[in-house]
Amino acid sequence: MCESNIYLVDPGQDDEQGELFLEAVDQLLPEEDGSWRVTSIFGEQKIVTGRIRSMHLVDHRIIFERGA
Amino acid sequence: MCESNIYLVDPGQDDEQGELFLEAVDQLLPEEDGSWRVTSIFGEQKIVTGRIRSMHLVDHRIIFERGA
Repeated sequence: MCESNIYLVDPGQDDEQGELFLEAVDQLLPEEDGSWRVTSIFGEQKIVTGRIRSMHLVDHRIIFERGA
Repeated sequence: MCESNIYLVDPGQDDEQGELFLEAVDQLLPEEDGSWRVTSIFGEQKIVTGRIRSMHLVDHRIIFERGA
């Protein structure tokens, strides 16, 4: 399967070793308020408040920067 | 491998059967001007001008809406 894990870092944090937010994410959909609705392959759904800093799909890593 | 293909749709286009923009994308990085730098597993790098409409990683599909 080709899902990714979502990690959260703080704004200004140099490295991308963030806190695991949700594993095995299949779908990411932007919401109108700038947040993201993310859904795992297990059907778990969460809202990420922040912006995407980087995506590394082969490594299964999507990094979000926490935000308002 | 868990790369995705990037497709472009027009703003307001209902379906997500967009034009193929780049295959086998590994990395996506936001640029300061709101565009995205995307890199395939073959090292091909392109700039997408637009916003992400949806990502479906298990289906290997990332949909961008064309934009300024």
